[in-house]
Amino acid sequence: MSNHTLSAFDADLFKIRSEVLGMGRRVEKFVMDAVNALTTRDTERAKQLIALDSAIDSMQRDIETRAIETIARRQPLAVDLRELVSAFRIVSDLERIGDLAKNLCKRTILMEASPPTRLLRRIDRVAVPVLDQLRGVLDSYAQADAGRAMSVWSTDQEIDAAHSGLLRELVTRMVEDPRNIVFCAHLLFCSKNLERMGDHATNIAEAVHYMVTGDRLAGERPKGDDLSLLRRPRAAMRHRRPLPA
Amino acid sequence: MSNHTLSAFDADLFKIRSEVLGMGRRVEKFVMDAVNALTTRDTERAKQLIALDSAIDSMQRDIETRAIETIARRQPLAVDLRELVSAFRIVSDLERIGDLAKNLCKRTILMEASPPTRLLRRIDRVAVPVLDQLRGVLDSYAQADAGRAMSVWSTDQEIDAAHSGLLRELVTRMVEDPRNIVFCAHLLFCSKNLERMGDHATNIAEAVHYMVTGDRLAGERPKGDDLSLLRRPRAAMRHRRPLPA
Repeated sequence: MSNHTLSAFDADLFKIRSEVLGMGRRVEKFVMDAVNALTTRDTERAKQLIALDSAIDSMQRDIETRAIETIARRQPLAVDLRELVSAFRIVSDLERIGDLAKNLCKRTILMEASPPTRLLRRIDRVAVPVLDQLRGVLDSYAQADAGRAMSVWSTDQEIDAAHSGLLRELVTRMVEDPRNIVFCAHLLFCSKNLERMGDHATNIAEAVHYMVTGDRLAGERPKGDDLSLLRRPRAAMRHRRPLPA
Repeated sequence: MSNHTLSAFDADLFKIRSEVLGMGRRVEKFVMDAVNALTTRDTERAKQLIALDSAIDSMQRDIETRAIETIARRQPLAVDLRELVSAFRIVSDLERIGDLAKNLCKRTILMEASPPTRLLRRIDRVAVPVLDQLRGVLDSYAQADAGRAMSVWSTDQEIDAAHSGLLRELVTRMVEDPRNIVFCAHLLFCSKNLERMGDHATNIAEAVHYMVTGDRLAGERPKGDDLSLLRRPRAAMRHRRPLPA
């Protein structure tokens, strides 16, 4: 491969990384705004936010197209191919997080009765660690930091605890007074949506770890030779220009 | 590319297709069994079924590894690259459907009170069209049939209607008697899980359509030239040996 081709390829990769990160930051902001609209019961804001989802879908399609074209045109190997494959996975998870944020907005609009402030604050307790996780995993991607990705991957107990605590409280409220049932059911789904965003952030952490190291975090099952073609130490990450975090 | 290489590549593609389809059929069976365990309140069966999830995860990892290695080794273009990229997407959605089936099993075990038979039958009304959709989309993959994929993609109203109907009934039951609240909350999540399986089947339909035609179903936004590199008519699908459905 000539130097000319090499640097054009680097430019392709850099552009894809920037776009993935840009999409990630946009999704992170969308989640934050959707949670704010929900917890302040701001239905007007929720209506405006819903339109963001199709912009995020477009970003995903554009990045996918660019990644496929880059694979077709440059025929990358090892770490570069892993990077492109990981971009695919990451934008798929980001798109789903966007869908879940849109769903929070829809519920904000649908909810007729106003849940008590204390319950809405509990939603924040689930949302804050989810947003931390999302931010952390995007940072790990920007810095190609497998260790950081791994630490995001291994810590979602806080989210689970906040989610379970909220579910228990919601059920108690439903039992206390049937008039609470409809908005509590909405909040059940909101909390579940946030918890699922955490799952997607975990998937992204797996993709980042795989991108950097060639190793998968997912399995109980340690893999043998079958990954060897693409398994390279982190030092092999070629010319990876850091991205603004 | 020599004939020898061509046919080795065809063998790679055929193997990946068979494995994707095998994984799909396994997931379909898992969903069916999980729904049966739930609707018959068979907690022993649900416990056995949970173990299937990690087998499905392994299948996904194996197919992904094989697809990445095939891209790296054979450097495919156009329709073949699309096929490999689609395999990635499809197994990711299948894995998530498996997760959701596992979640049904967990709820079957957790549910202490037994919901009335009539409500359990309503779960079947959501599950049956979801299973139809999953079967249909796997058939469309086996036959590389974009038209069939598109028809699966455009028909999930039945699922939505059954899911909404069940949610309304569950909320009514909760309001009638607070003792129903906990199992109704479980069933709310079960119905939601099934509806989400339908969403994943829709994603798979998009991937099949893209694989066969090079066109995306997703967008409101018609795409211009930026997909042209990979857009080929279906006739260009090379030597696609049909798979057993």
